[in-house]
Amino acid sequence: MNQDVSVERIRVRYGETDQMGHAYYGNYMLWFEQARGRWCRDRGFTYKSLEDMGYKLPVVEVQARYRGEVKYDDLIQVRIHVAEWKRSAVKFAYEIYNETSGQVTTEGYTWHVLVGQEMRAITVPTEVGALMERAPSPETALA
Amino acid sequence: MNQDVSVERIRVRYGETDQMGHAYYGNYMLWFEQARGRWCRDRGFTYKSLEDMGYKLPVVEVQARYRGEVKYDDLIQVRIHVAEWKRSAVKFAYEIYNETSGQVTTEGYTWHVLVGQEMRAITVPTEVGALMERAPSPETALA
Amino acid sequence: MNQDVSVERIRVRYGETDQMGHAYYGNYMLWFEQARGRWCRDRGFTYKSLEDMGYKLPVVEVQARYRGEVKYDDLIQVRIHVAEWKRSAVKFAYEIYNETSGQVTTEGYTWHVLVGQEMRAITVPTEVGALMERAPSPETALA
Amino acid sequence: MNQDVSVERIRVRYGETDQMGHAYYGNYMLWFEQARGRWCRDRGFTYKSLEDMGYKLPVVEVQARYRGEVKYDDLIQVRIHVAEWKRSAVKFAYEIYNETSGQVTTEGYTWHVLVGQEMRAITVPTEVGALMERAPSPETALA
Repeated sequence: MNQDVSVERIRVRYGETDQMGHAYYGNYMLWFEQARGRWCRDRGFTYKSLEDMGYKLPVVEVQARYRGEVKYDDLIQVRIHVAEWKRSAVKFAYEIYNETSGQVTTEGYTWHVLVGQEMRAITVPTEVGALMERAPSPETALA
Repeated sequence: MNQDVSVERIRVRYGETDQMGHAYYGNYMLWFEQARGRWCRDRGFTYKSLEDMGYKLPVVEVQARYRGEVKYDDLIQVRIHVAEWKRSAVKFAYEIYNETSGQVTTEGYTWHVLVGQEMRAITVPTEVGALMERAPSPETALA
Repeated sequence: MNQDVSVERIRVRYGETDQMGHAYYGNYMLWFEQARGRWCRDRGFTYKSLEDMGYKLPVVEVQARYRGEVKYDDLIQVRIHVAEWKRSAVKFAYEIYNETSGQVTTEGYTWHVLVGQEMRAITVPTEVGALMERAPSPETALA
Repeated sequence: MNQDVSVERIRVRYGETDQMGHAYYGNYMLWFEQARGRWCRDRGFTYKSLEDMGYKLPVVEVQARYRGEVKYDDLIQVRIHVAEWKRSAVKFAYEIYNETSGQVTTEGYTWHVLVGQEMRAITVPTEVGALMERAPSPETALA
């Protein structure tokens, strides 16, 4: 199992904050998702291309621990890697490092099940497994 | 053209505010959408049923003017009516009355085009026009 | 510890879905938050009033398991109760029952820390504990 | 009045789509906001620094026209410039060019009022006017 880490840098939007002055806890889910997109691109494909092939990876479980502050205009790094594989499921782990404050602020994971057109879980087929097992590579990475 | 007003009452969510302490301007679009759902229900059908019939009403233009404050936990009324009809387009007008503050805070409109399965504009067919021209009725309104 | 369940009914918005045709996983966090607001109201106070008193209850951990489908226009019940208390922390547990489909679709929890004006954890003071330990009551519940 | 255009490139998130398969109309407001942040950075300051100085620029009006498709994973350019100035108000104009489809898909504007700590409109002070009138410059632009 390839556990290389990918990193997505995100600038926090004003509309992602709430009146407490921090990023709202639900908006981290969008950042985790964006990091998954980066993870795919680093390996030379896109999540969109997976859906075009007839597969989807819906989230079946999420957990996040918020330990530090993330505020408007902060530049964060969402660090993502595959933490576990099962027959038809994959677990991504996340760590958010806030470049602006210099702190690791958040940890989390998501579990996904691979489904086909009928939205039923399927064993990861070879063509998908080959993509997901790729090591990230600067040569093949997508912008 | 039936211009009866429908009213949707909404409690403002914490995650809909931003660090300025008010509702974020983009979140009003979700409230306008929810009011359109109410408008349909008051007339005995749902927007979902329109999509099930093969039609969609995507937004092609939106305008909103923010004059007063809408804050967390405020209870707002989104008042909606049909302001204009064209061959394949309809304009909804909105007014937000903030029950908590007693002020009209927001005005806006959306233009929608009726499209079929191919996402191309179509002349409003009889079965859709009949629904849209209905007067709201307590007897047939959906909860 | 009072573990009475409160229930918030929510109609799923169009803008809460994604192109997979279901509610986006991050939007459940807004529903959990709305249910926390209901939980307070059932006990005769509002989360807003807590903040007005100088306290906040930021989320420090969230978990959600998505087992069933939640779609546009579905009417869901978010069932919430207090699952655990610590000196300065409280855990809410959630279950989402989809009235439209008749299925329990989602389970989750959030951990919150009580903080004062300085955003530092404080021991739950008597005035707050008294509110949080209340049993829900139709007589004192807020609309 | 300096009308130089700034450009912010944004990759559309999955959670920004809806079940129609396009970006939800309310999410464009977050992109407009992000473009305003870019506009400031191109001129060597941040909107955050304006707030730190005690000023805010709340949106008092928005309009958007959706002419073309913006889908998941599309890379869009939000092109922004100042279209008009008044004593205490500024109008930003936006054009979204979808790099993925090669089409201009969206046009819009926002009106903002400059307010001080009391959230009341104030005449643009010299220190703010000087920032806002700056020409964008590669030498002073912030990343």
